[in-house]
Amino acid sequence: MQRIFTNELSTHVGARVRLAGWLQHRRELSRVTFAVLRDARGLAQIVVEGDAVAGLLPETVVEVEGDAVAAPQAPGGVEIHGPAFRVLAEPDEAPPVELRRPELKEQLPTLLDHAPVALRHPRKRASFELAAASVAGFRAALDARGFTEIQTPKIVASATESGANLFEVDYFGRPAFLAQSPQLYKQTMVGVFERVYEVGPVFRAEPHDTARHLAEYVSLDAEIGFIEDHRTVMRVLRDAVAGMVDGVRARAASAAELLGVELPDVPDQIPAVDFPAALKLIGVEGELDLAPAHERLLGKWAQREHGSDFVFVTGFPLAKRPFYTHPHPDRPELSNSFHLIFRGLELTTGGQRLHRYEEYLGALAAAGQDPAPFDAYLQAFKYGMPPHGGFAIGLERWVARLVGAKNIRETTLFPRDRNRLTP
Amino acid sequence: MQRIFTNELSTHVGARVRLAGWLQHRRELSRVTFAVLRDARGLAQIVVEGDAVAGLLPETVVEVEGDAVAAPQAPGGVEIHGPAFRVLAEPDEAPPVELRRPELKEQLPTLLDHAPVALRHPRKRASFELAAASVAGFRAALDARGFTEIQTPKIVASATESGANLFEVDYFGRPAFLAQSPQLYKQTMVGVFERVYEVGPVFRAEPHDTARHLAEYVSLDAEIGFIEDHRTVMRVLRDAVAGMVDGVRARAASAAELLGVELPDVPDQIPAVDFPAALKLIGVEGELDLAPAHERLLGKWAQREHGSDFVFVTGFPLAKRPFYTHPHPDRPELSNSFHLIFRGLELTTGGQRLHRYEEYLGALAAAGQDPAPFDAYLQAFKYGMPPHGGFAIGLERWVARLVGAKNIRETTLFPRDRNRLTP
Repeated sequence: MQRIFTNELSTHVGARVRLAGWLQHRRELSRVTFAVLRDARGLAQIVVEGDAVAGLLPETVVEVEGDAVAAPQAPGGVEIHGPAFRVLAEPDEAPPVELRRPELKEQLPTLLDHAPVALRHPRKRASFELAAASVAGFRAALDARGFTEIQTPKIVASATESGANLFEVDYFGRPAFLAQSPQLYKQTMVGVFERVYEVGPVFRAEPHDTARHLAEYVSLDAEIGFIEDHRTVMRVLRDAVAGMVDGVRARAASAAELLGVELPDVPDQIPAVDFPAALKLIGVEGELDLAPAHERLLGKWAQREHGSDFVFVTGFPLAKRPFYTHPHPDRPELSNSFHLIFRGLELTTGGQRLHRYEEYLGALAAAGQDPAPFDAYLQAFKYGMPPHGGFAIGLERWVARLVGAKNIRETTLFPRDRNRLTP
Repeated sequence: MQRIFTNELSTHVGARVRLAGWLQHRRELSRVTFAVLRDARGLAQIVVEGDAVAGLLPETVVEVEGDAVAAPQAPGGVEIHGPAFRVLAEPDEAPPVELRRPELKEQLPTLLDHAPVALRHPRKRASFELAAASVAGFRAALDARGFTEIQTPKIVASATESGANLFEVDYFGRPAFLAQSPQLYKQTMVGVFERVYEVGPVFRAEPHDTARHLAEYVSLDAEIGFIEDHRTVMRVLRDAVAGMVDGVRARAASAAELLGVELPDVPDQIPAVDFPAALKLIGVEGELDLAPAHERLLGKWAQREHGSDFVFVTGFPLAKRPFYTHPHPDRPELSNSFHLIFRGLELTTGGQRLHRYEEYLGALAAAGQDPAPFDAYLQAFKYGMPPHGGFAIGLERWVARLVGAKNIRETTLFPRDRNRLTP
């Protein structure tokens, strides 16, 4: 008999079926036991007369054959009667996380320490279904716009963003580093494919433990050639984010429903405000960058004034931007850069990059950086590069904001930070 | 005027069009100059009267407006007359690689040293279009079979495969390592989603320089729960590979044509031969693993006897397999493992894994490994895991074999090996 999944039960009422999964818990009444089986797609209630499941630990892996019977009071409206069990694997002990609860009650450190089990909880795993669906939507949106997917090296010879926050690798006896972003390579690849994207890990040796930073995260990167300026990039980013929302709607609707996620509308024109005006709006002055509190205020402003979950802030002061940032053509102290704030949190940074060789030499000199480690990268510009720009979206941040998680670790499978290297 | 791509010219004959790209080369005759423009999709010939492009270096980035005129002798059957150029960026010097040639003549080390430019050549970049299309096809095949995409950490606390070939990372002052594979995490995630895949970088500190090994490559990993044995995995692998071929056919047909790639047929039943029989077929004995020469002979055998580009070898001796390998149920010196050989090269390893906690403790003890560093990983088994197995496909090897490259570095954007860390 072919195994079916728990979410297929409703189309098999009246039939004998085979299920497989984990015995999540059992409730023993005087005459029957209600056992709950969990598989990758949901839960099923099994009515057991006799002692077939007596003594089985939670998370015992079983196959079960039984009759699918309509039962309005059961989860999903169907339960299994007359079950015959086959135990596939017995756990060594009961798990340290109580998976039977509708919501896990354990504290975050406990859940992270026991992630291999905690992630099995339907609400925990739902976040990662949202992540997978978002990535699929991101790719679909960019594929439809003529982008080529690339994979670039993570072991690199020099810093991307700055010399700070770099992890050093012992590379056959000499020092190398983990890429802080695919920035230099995705720019290089604009010379090859014009429009590229990459979904992959990036590494930041963040010295501080915060609720919004990780030492390793998944970055959704795109880079686009032959742009007018950063506004071309912002339009593509808008479409990529809309694609991510579409991806969730198409592929992870039940996970979103389980978590009560209200999917955002992505406006055709996301409201945009330039940096000096943004500071004024929130009543601060003299800043060179936005602090988290500023982002929250701007998020509220966008919601209040435009009914938008998203707001662009453009034209950040050049002083705090990476060396490859293109200055504003008329106000060289500002830049053709932007942040996209989603529900009060910076989701994305992006902008137009420099594209001329001599500009790079000048920018590196101005930043006090030796150009030698960038030789290979600078080849792209030495041999002709079009105006271009791009952006990067932090996947875990996106999902955290979607589900309203307070800590980014809640939406990271196996988070890495200065204190956490396992599981 | 909206820019079009060179491969769209044939539908604009008779119209004024705008193109953009790189001036790949120019040929000056007595009265006209033929300039060749390259964009992300192809080449276009531009007939220039006068000196508009005189003195422009190869790889100058331009926009050009002109009349699309039918010209049977021109590449693509259309050329541009009456062009007006706008220079977007001038290179600093002529590139060190002659992109104008139909095939690059430079030696591999030169091409790798100048990858940012060499990759611009239509034949070079075509390989990476095949790679992107293959990955898209891999994902589509597994998405259709109920798999969930995951991203797991690359900075890890302990070895996956063995203590050898590990890159060490300075992780906030303590030692950590780069993941040799997502093996332990993808197995763990079978406990969550039952069927998972991951496309991401893996890291091997390969001490030897060979034509088929890299220090960093892209691995297409899958892991499947509730299997019968390794043969369930082999069926999914067959479908994944068929999906990769379909992906190339659907998304990169012109790249395949440009490179003269003959796409393989993936038989519904890929021929399979068990390890002892395989040794006999090729007249060797007493081996515990297959050497490259053996793979080539078995590839020829499969082609000759079955007309197949693919052949499975199953049941490798357990002695040379990683500790998590499931033994053959009746012959414990053999294993439920397999290799998939594609055109005489090992493309994939896979198999059934152990799934019981006590089996892991026994296997680690037998391998002389301390179980402590595996504590977090072993949680999955301690708390119940179904029979499962999986496989990993090396993306660069796949493409190398498709295009007939002699060295895997030819199909790697920016290869990493013990001598090469840039570009």
